[in-house]
Amino acid sequence: MNAPLRFEILQSPARTRGRIGRVETPNGSFETPAFMTVGTKATVKGLYPSLLRGCACEVLLANTYHLLLRPGPDVVAELGGLHAMMGWQGPILTDSGGYQAYSMADKNAVDEDGVSFKSIVDGSTIRMTPEESMRIQNALGADIIMAFDDCPPSVDPSAGPVNQTRLKLAAARDARGGEYDHAARVRASNERTVRWLERCKKAHARSEEQALFGIVQGGTDEGERAWSAERIGAIDLPGYAIGGVAVGESPADIHRVVEFTAPMLPSSKPRYLMGVGYERDILAAVLSGVDMFDCVLPTRNGRSATAFTRTGPLRLKNQAHERDREVIEPGCDCPACDPGRHGLATPDGRGFARGTIRHLFRAEEMLGPILVSLHNVRHFQRLMLDIRRALREDDWLAFARRWPVAIAGIDPALFGRLGLTELASEAPPEPADDTETTDA
Amino acid sequence: MNAPLRFEILQSPARTRGRIGRVETPNGSFETPAFMTVGTKATVKGLYPSLLRGCACEVLLANTYHLLLRPGPDVVAELGGLHAMMGWQGPILTDSGGYQAYSMADKNAVDEDGVSFKSIVDGSTIRMTPEESMRIQNALGADIIMAFDDCPPSVDPSAGPVNQTRLKLAAARDARGGEYDHAARVRASNERTVRWLERCKKAHARSEEQALFGIVQGGTDEGERAWSAERIGAIDLPGYAIGGVAVGESPADIHRVVEFTAPMLPSSKPRYLMGVGYERDILAAVLSGVDMFDCVLPTRNGRSATAFTRTGPLRLKNQAHERDREVIEPGCDCPACDPGRHGLATPDGRGFARGTIRHLFRAEEMLGPILVSLHNVRHFQRLMLDIRRALREDDWLAFARRWPVAIAGIDPALFGRLGLTELASEAPPEPADDTETTDA
Repeated sequence: MNAPLRFEILQSPARTRGRIGRVETPNGSFETPAFMTVGTKATVKGLYPSLLRGCACEVLLANTYHLLLRPGPDVVAELGGLHAMMGWQGPILTDSGGYQAYSMADKNAVDEDGVSFKSIVDGSTIRMTPEESMRIQNALGADIIMAFDDCPPSVDPSAGPVNQTRLKLAAARDARGGEYDHAARVRASNERTVRWLERCKKAHARSEEQALFGIVQGGTDEGERAWSAERIGAIDLPGYAIGGVAVGESPADIHRVVEFTAPMLPSSKPRYLMGVGYERDILAAVLSGVDMFDCVLPTRNGRSATAFTRTGPLRLKNQAHERDREVIEPGCDCPACDPGRHGLATPDGRGFARGTIRHLFRAEEMLGPILVSLHNVRHFQRLMLDIRRALREDDWLAFARRWPVAIAGIDPALFGRLGLTELASEAPPEPADDTETTDA
Repeated sequence: MNAPLRFEILQSPARTRGRIGRVETPNGSFETPAFMTVGTKATVKGLYPSLLRGCACEVLLANTYHLLLRPGPDVVAELGGLHAMMGWQGPILTDSGGYQAYSMADKNAVDEDGVSFKSIVDGSTIRMTPEESMRIQNALGADIIMAFDDCPPSVDPSAGPVNQTRLKLAAARDARGGEYDHAARVRASNERTVRWLERCKKAHARSEEQALFGIVQGGTDEGERAWSAERIGAIDLPGYAIGGVAVGESPADIHRVVEFTAPMLPSSKPRYLMGVGYERDILAAVLSGVDMFDCVLPTRNGRSATAFTRTGPLRLKNQAHERDREVIEPGCDCPACDPGRHGLATPDGRGFARGTIRHLFRAEEMLGPILVSLHNVRHFQRLMLDIRRALREDDWLAFARRWPVAIAGIDPALFGRLGLTELASEAPPEPADDTETTDA
């Protein structure tokens, strides 16, 4: 039997738990630690794929839930599969659809066999089970597919303020009736996730072409995470993910759970932290041993005119930028800041001015979201390049000078525990921010 | 004094009045007959400029009216001018703002000095005069700028059914009070346009860098067209345009007016037919001696999922395309149909399937409008390439086989009069369709 995925660890630096590697799939390879750009509905919003290539994107993510609803997996298959639809000659990963079924559907109900939910497209009732998720993902044809899991609330929704995602996740459980017992819910969900993973593995019909990853759950409880990591890691698979992170917790909780969980996953397999996140969260997770990431932040924030920079966000709609001739971030090599590197000679050899981008947003022109999305997509690829460089050269002070935004918001004690004592005197944590895992 | 524009006629075939030429401007040159792609608000909607380059676009058009309202000419100038804002190292043309002031403003009033109208952005009252149009276009910085003219209704709006543009044009005149006399209105407008052109020429402050074109008016009346062509053509300018065409007339009237008017303009200067049009209209006009065109059809129709093909329009939202793996137009070399030519290797070496594009439109994804706009932009550039080739090789039967959509809808008698007897037995005229001159 052919392996659908090969993971090679190229370098394991002495300090930190980070590693440099390469994932090979039937549709090409990518370097790790890797950031996957999100193309929810079989397109990275607004970006002609050659421009994504120009940003050095190597691997994309699409969302099973959205593609199930429209155009449907059979249509995707008839159109040549996800790679053909996305015009993408490279690796693609699909999620299982489970997280969106819980968090996006207006009504849903979970039982031992699966989840029922209402389509946000036409209101019809849809039934998702581990077997159905495999059937759909087999039809979509991504190189890496995810197990259908039972994702519990990461923190107790009955205690303290909750965000909307948390409320929906709680509502999904409450639909079963009875008093909500968070610890019991997490444990039940953890056990079910193991049973569902076995069913996924059995139902997976294209295991020589598509690599199935299992998902560790357990919320913010280290005992539950340990239990889950042990059970999930014991099932032989090409890779493993950490789910249920960054669904409402504080950055400190995110970093703590990842630091605790990542090392418990098989070290010879790629470790994927789902739906994360900000620069600080990615850095903390890489140092804890995580290899793969995805997040909608680059494109979602791009569409609302918020540009990522190495020193923090830039809001391009601000009046202050009306006559601003500076590019988004001087020194950046993205198609907005440095079009000359992307096949576009400009009259003055300069990139698109902040004032021009502000005008495009005010005039509701597509090119505004396109340019800021491209910049943000490139920002996260540059982050990963520089993280790999810092791992390779073991020079984290140089990294910290280049990426203040990534260093800020990490508890200095974490750096200390991971051996980076030179970073342990840096900036205090930032306030929490939520991330989501689809770009709808 | 330096000339801001140089026009060289490279070839004047014996048959037809068409000619092959080259226009040189301070920002580069373009081959004629040329089709200018419209970027109303300083961007061709949705298209990163390197992709426009890949479609062989050489010259773009932007609309003064829209840029006056937002971001304003002083902001454009501070941001480096239109070329910098559009990321376009090549020629750009701006219109005068007059046509939109008449046709788009809710309220307007014309007098001998100029036009007053309400801003569609903030409701403020704006005054446009020949001097103000020159001041604005000098600030925008295009290579070719247009005279501010008084554009009368092309046909009598008090007779027969009228479209919305015609109604607005009529309303602009009726605001002056009194009974509407179409012949008198056309004559008064013609005379005023000559006086305004003299004022534009005098007010033009950058005549060594920007080429001012005069505009011939006269509606569908040949006597008025002749009068206007003589007076406007007598004012020494780098180029001349035919305005007031395709604002509601039948294709037959469009072709008749252009066939009559084009040869009356100075033959050594470029002739520009404003806001036209469909393939048939461009072909008829080239054969009558026109060198330059612009129209929003490629991008506007692209955004509504209507693709131009050599055999007629293709509506990509149709259910019939749900599982259609064919590209928009087999054999096309655009970034949608043949991405390999545009730096994008695809898994199966194929272009984006019609079914994929239909999905993108149904999912309201930007890439749908982007792909169809790119196809349509390339379609019109291929049309111009093939028209230039037919002029060069004097082989119109070969052209007719390649472009049935352009031959259909032209009165065979026109081919006969222009010496193309081999085309005089082709398809009957098509029904009328309106075109507009901004892509808002």
